[in-house]
Amino acid sequence: MKSTTPLTFSAKATLPVGFRAAGIIAGLKKNRQRDMALFFSDSPATLAGTFTTNQVKAATVRLDTERVANIGMAHGIIVNSGQANACTGKAGMRDAKAMAEHTATQFGIAPELVLVCSTGRIGVPLQMDRIRPGIEKLAGALSPTGGEDAARAIMTTDLVPKRYTTRFIANGRPCRLTGIAKGSGMIQPNMATMLAFLLTDAAIDRRALQKALKAAVDQSFNRITVDADQSTNDTALLLANGRAGNTPLKPGHRDWPAFVAALDGLTFRLAMDMVRDGEGAQKLVTVRVQGARTAADAEAAARSVANSFLVKTSWVGSTPNWGRVMDALGYSPAKVDETKVEIFYDKLLAVQKGLKAGASMARLSKVVAKKQFTLTIDLHLGRQAATVYSCDCTEDYIRINK
Amino acid sequence: MKSTTPLTFSAKATLPVGFRAAGIIAGLKKNRQRDMALFFSDSPATLAGTFTTNQVKAATVRLDTERVANIGMAHGIIVNSGQANACTGKAGMRDAKAMAEHTATQFGIAPELVLVCSTGRIGVPLQMDRIRPGIEKLAGALSPTGGEDAARAIMTTDLVPKRYTTRFIANGRPCRLTGIAKGSGMIQPNMATMLAFLLTDAAIDRRALQKALKAAVDQSFNRITVDADQSTNDTALLLANGRAGNTPLKPGHRDWPAFVAALDGLTFRLAMDMVRDGEGAQKLVTVRVQGARTAADAEAAARSVANSFLVKTSWVGSTPNWGRVMDALGYSPAKVDETKVEIFYDKLLAVQKGLKAGASMARLSKVVAKKQFTLTIDLHLGRQAATVYSCDCTEDYIRINK
Repeated sequence: MKSTTPLTFSAKATLPVGFRAAGIIAGLKKNRQRDMALFFSDSPATLAGTFTTNQVKAATVRLDTERVANIGMAHGIIVNSGQANACTGKAGMRDAKAMAEHTATQFGIAPELVLVCSTGRIGVPLQMDRIRPGIEKLAGALSPTGGEDAARAIMTTDLVPKRYTTRFIANGRPCRLTGIAKGSGMIQPNMATMLAFLLTDAAIDRRALQKALKAAVDQSFNRITVDADQSTNDTALLLANGRAGNTPLKPGHRDWPAFVAALDGLTFRLAMDMVRDGEGAQKLVTVRVQGARTAADAEAAARSVANSFLVKTSWVGSTPNWGRVMDALGYSPAKVDETKVEIFYDKLLAVQKGLKAGASMARLSKVVAKKQFTLTIDLHLGRQAATVYSCDCTEDYIRINK
Repeated sequence: MKSTTPLTFSAKATLPVGFRAAGIIAGLKKNRQRDMALFFSDSPATLAGTFTTNQVKAATVRLDTERVANIGMAHGIIVNSGQANACTGKAGMRDAKAMAEHTATQFGIAPELVLVCSTGRIGVPLQMDRIRPGIEKLAGALSPTGGEDAARAIMTTDLVPKRYTTRFIANGRPCRLTGIAKGSGMIQPNMATMLAFLLTDAAIDRRALQKALKAAVDQSFNRITVDADQSTNDTALLLANGRAGNTPLKPGHRDWPAFVAALDGLTFRLAMDMVRDGEGAQKLVTVRVQGARTAADAEAAARSVANSFLVKTSWVGSTPNWGRVMDALGYSPAKVDETKVEIFYDKLLAVQKGLKAGASMARLSKVVAKKQFTLTIDLHLGRQAATVYSCDCTEDYIRINK
């Protein structure tokens, strides 16, 4: 056993060695906020990516999916917010490729080594006349300290930037992992309107990198829900440029667990920030279902509760409306026997055998009034469990989206 | 061919011959509004019923389901609003039976001939000390003109009573069919927090009655959605007391189609009123999916769009946000090829081959601004179609439920 210092995650976008970034105003949004970002590795980096499972996919998702699968290396990622470049047909794909090409031209690299991400409104064409000068501006603005600007430039309805940096050791060499992400509507299973860019200077085997990313995403971004709407643009990209000089990490390498812990911890923190900053959200609610007959049942029951708008609206106030939780369990595809259900609000038992239990409404209300609480539901039908992270649904959610 | 006068549906609860009703204040709600209703047939009536498919079922649903299956006859229906009598365990079942018994006692009939419905808050016990005197009061208040009071007494968050009366002919005898129903949250597939009481003085074969009710419900109450939440209490009951003196209607009887048309038309109108009066709703939107590969795909695609909160919030304003419609189609379980999708707002083509089509935003906005419009989506993958009726989701929905 090796003793390691515990991982720390700072809410900063301190880029790993060999990475630079920038975030600028290209004029794609009406409000004169930063709307384009560039992430760049000075040397080609090993690449992994996961994408939305929506059948309607943005041009950028189709382009990047192909590049992750066939090339597996990247130099940079060019990002715009304001327009999603989804439902834009052949012109959209042409624009996505042009973004990569124009970026590549600035650095004299192959266009295939540039990935492209867009977020914003679906069905409108990209404003390429603003994006081209934006790319040139970004190339000039690239800086090792540009992570914060980039984190702001990818925001849409996000209220706060989301970024963390952590450190780990590989072959005795210090490595850094930085994650920069955005939410915050169209958030649900299998990636949301979320973009996440994960950058590390560790050297990592390509297949292992993809496997680690998939596993991390499954336990973080794929476990959150804001509104049960799954976006056309969800993308998580992970670049490892190897500048730390370690021997490439993969399962079996003694430092592989350190990287996995860093990646898992980072993506989980980014995911929780997305829920907390969900459109209109005021609280983060962990919905844990245990005692389910099957893993699929646990997942279905947790999602049914976490996505019920009657449940989510009840969390706005401080009313422990467990009847709505029972209702949502009952209509989920999961096997439920109402006479066995137990529901806890944090540690307080609210429902036992499907009936009101000991905890007083006053005590339960105090839990629901908190900024963060956990609903634990035991179906008492088996041994499987699943956790989904959700938020309340306030009038602001409607105001933002109407 | 027999010429018949076209069916007319008046928005009144004019009870059929031999039926009486009442609606009174028993004190179950805080606001001193009517909260108990009784429907009574002076002679035993043939009975049909359909119920929620939620696994968590109110005591009343379990009781009535058993009575519909095993007895198939009824004299009366006792209803309370304010408490749902769901998640109330054995005490709840005892209370439900006691409601039937106490009602039966007033008329000297068998308790098994009384059905019981509750609607309101889940998980709280019925206030039997108020319900018992309520039942006595109702028995005294029963009247052939009591339908309107009863329609008001079953309301919860409904803003308007929902009732229609229509007429048809069987064996040359005039028959009447009256429907009284309530919405208006927890409204989604397979019955909603909805109660519907359908009363006719026609004589109808019991099996045919059940079959006709099931078919009518499938095309009306099961095709609407307000918030995708399915309730624990949904119940539709149909009583036919035969007082019109016709020979019992069933398929093959020349007047069977007249009854079916009356029943289908009536339940459809009640269902549309439920959507229009959905919690916070300001408009009724028909979502029709055609060109689906399978019937299940058509249904899944229509429900995905009709239940998307991003789509529903976009209808609040007058923004034809078809990108969100494309997104919801894409994450539905239905097979979708975005390059084939066509979307119409009423008759205006907004999307063709997955891309923005000819109609200007200004013209599309005029459609979305209407109190009622139809979204027609052609997947161009097959020949199956499905229609779901939905509404917009306004800030009022949150205000009502938080």
